[in-house]
Amino acid sequence: MIYLDHAAATPVSQKALQVMTPYFAEEFFNPSAPYLPAKRVREVYELAKDDLAHVIGAKGVDLVITAGATESINLAFTVCQGKVLVLETEHAAVLEVAKQCSYELVKVDKNGLILIDDLRDKLSDEVELVSISLANNELGTIQPLVEIAEVIRRVRQERLRNNNNTPLYLHSDASQALNLLDLNVARLGVDLLTINAAKCGGPKGVGALYVAHGVKLRPISVGGGQERGLRSGTENVAGVVGFATAAQEAKAHLAGSRKKYQVMSRILRQELEKIGKDMNSTTDFVMPTPIFLGHPKHQLASFVPVCFPGVDAERLIYRLEQHGVLVSTGAACAANKGNKSHVLAAIGLSDVEIAGSLRISLGSANTIENVTEAASIIREEVEREYCRIHERGHHV
Amino acid sequence: MIYLDHAAATPVSQKALQVMTPYFAEEFFNPSAPYLPAKRVREVYELAKDDLAHVIGAKGVDLVITAGATESINLAFTVCQGKVLVLETEHAAVLEVAKQCSYELVKVDKNGLILIDDLRDKLSDEVELVSISLANNELGTIQPLVEIAEVIRRVRQERLRNNNNTPLYLHSDASQALNLLDLNVARLGVDLLTINAAKCGGPKGVGALYVAHGVKLRPISVGGGQERGLRSGTENVAGVVGFATAAQEAKAHLAGSRKKYQVMSRILRQELEKIGKDMNSTTDFVMPTPIFLGHPKHQLASFVPVCFPGVDAERLIYRLEQHGVLVSTGAACAANKGNKSHVLAAIGLSDVEIAGSLRISLGSANTIENVTEAASIIREEVEREYCRIHERGHHV
Repeated sequence: MIYLDHAAATPVSQKALQVMTPYFAEEFFNPSAPYLPAKRVREVYELAKDDLAHVIGAKGVDLVITAGATESINLAFTVCQGKVLVLETEHAAVLEVAKQCSYELVKVDKNGLILIDDLRDKLSDEVELVSISLANNELGTIQPLVEIAEVIRRVRQERLRNNNNTPLYLHSDASQALNLLDLNVARLGVDLLTINAAKCGGPKGVGALYVAHGVKLRPISVGGGQERGLRSGTENVAGVVGFATAAQEAKAHLAGSRKKYQVMSRILRQELEKIGKDMNSTTDFVMPTPIFLGHPKHQLASFVPVCFPGVDAERLIYRLEQHGVLVSTGAACAANKGNKSHVLAAIGLSDVEIAGSLRISLGSANTIENVTEAASIIREEVEREYCRIHERGHHV
Repeated sequence: MIYLDHAAATPVSQKALQVMTPYFAEEFFNPSAPYLPAKRVREVYELAKDDLAHVIGAKGVDLVITAGATESINLAFTVCQGKVLVLETEHAAVLEVAKQCSYELVKVDKNGLILIDDLRDKLSDEVELVSISLANNELGTIQPLVEIAEVIRRVRQERLRNNNNTPLYLHSDASQALNLLDLNVARLGVDLLTINAAKCGGPKGVGALYVAHGVKLRPISVGGGQERGLRSGTENVAGVVGFATAAQEAKAHLAGSRKKYQVMSRILRQELEKIGKDMNSTTDFVMPTPIFLGHPKHQLASFVPVCFPGVDAERLIYRLEQHGVLVSTGAACAANKGNKSHVLAAIGLSDVEIAGSLRISLGSANTIENVTEAASIIREEVEREYCRIHERGHHV
């Protein structure tokens, strides 16, 4: 089995699983209990939060632990009651929360990169929150967050000059990026940042929201008052310990991972580029050249989203699975419902192109060997699909 | 170490941990992904939900998986926008959510049992939700939910006759009860039921809300549309598998557990009752008799909440810990903030009595031997405290 869908889920790393395990049955105490073993668990929990925060250049007290990116995003949006701007290619979690507010979509170019001028145009006086994912979950396109933050800073200053007291915050969903980019909240200039354990070798059901000092949120769940009253409920100690370990591991190996994924990505791209070239001399028809999606430069190294025009990607996924290659068409939660990708539509793909697109995403389960093998399997299967389509065309 | 605080947290059972483990690093797939290994994970997840639901006499589709009891309670309260009635002894999670609504508190008697007449009196035409925990988290007092449901059913019928369309729902927080009572949502007559993995040998960070057919909730987190749109976010597969296994285990051993805890409870009570009796012949002062709290009959077998009038329970907890006995004064999240227990105040305890109260709660970590040992340690330490107080009184 060759897993090429790390954007959907990552296996928990050996190390993360190892450090988590004692907090299930041995050090199981409620971190708020009054005896020493529980206080030790509290310490472990707070230290893990510190460790996790350090990965993004923050402090433990700046983090609110949640049950995952979706909850973090929902919590982030409580910062405002006014208008929000979100990128048209955001994950469903951002889009659905935005729909509960007054909102407008900011456009992207054909590579999925934000159109900064569109952001500027739409940053009207009522806008209170801008939410732009750091890296898109289908394309891997990395947004120029520093530049976006600068635009926002200027608007803030302008508002100050005009005695407009409407606040303006910047939130970024960095779920896909923690694994591959060196994140620093100060450098990024964000007020709120969503991170997710399940996308970087940590366990499912754990996420965090970075909240800059002074930014006021409204809890979406109230109760015992944990997480400074912003997220009540007994702390998920094992989960947070696993998340912190996975995030630290990812950070420690950033440069190596990037290089590794660049090599793998090149193997995939070079092999897939042969489609419509090598075979054309022996076949009596021309196969379309694959279109690599996302920004050629500003893209997570692990992402190889690709369109095979005319192919039925759902069928291709099934065929690939027969050869042990696991890949998806896009966000699992969206693909699952049979919706066509709003991300691919936003970058201007036709319905046929969208229907022929795969999201290949590399990760810890990959080696040069299994990626090389997967590349040729994908190439063969795509070619086989084109031949099948061509033959069927002749029969009709 | 002898752990006597199972109401705060339970160790994850061996079996639950064993069945959870493969879903971290091996079967880590996103249950919404399109390939077979992911579909198998989806199946495992749905089957675990079914298993969990069966424990409370429901179906998997009736459950919304959450990050714990607090989130379940917050979600349950979205059923209404009108007035709510909650018991004055509810956990902070219920009380804090209630405070966000128009609410009134229903009174309890000195054993912590609901005053049904007070409920009847307060069930005015505007009330839309009644939330009564099945078993109190400090006293273990079990509420007569069937009787409460009957009161509510009558009010509903009356409203129907009066052409009053205001709905009326019954929610119960059964976090403490899953371990010890045979729960059946139909028999209990609830519309909404909160259960919690971390209190019954499952992992922290997982809970569920039973939602009766036709009861409409508003999601508190939106996004990818998981859990029938009521709770978005990638499913916590390992957590739910662990929860279901722990709940099934608890159910399978209900009768045995109850008998075991009854024996242990008797050992504790008999030993503690000797305080203020045996020693009084040798000491020159009378030690107060301990007061056992909660309902003498309608109480979870595992709960031995007890008041030692005049003793400083915080100090006692520290002393007991020196002897390896771990016990708390009440809800961990409340005790942690140094608040005096609103539960003990509600049953009419004086401030001195509240300050001298311990919550002893038995569970899987206990044996007849370690409870017997703990009982004599607690007795000795309480007696020592009384002597110390007496001596200090003489010195002053």
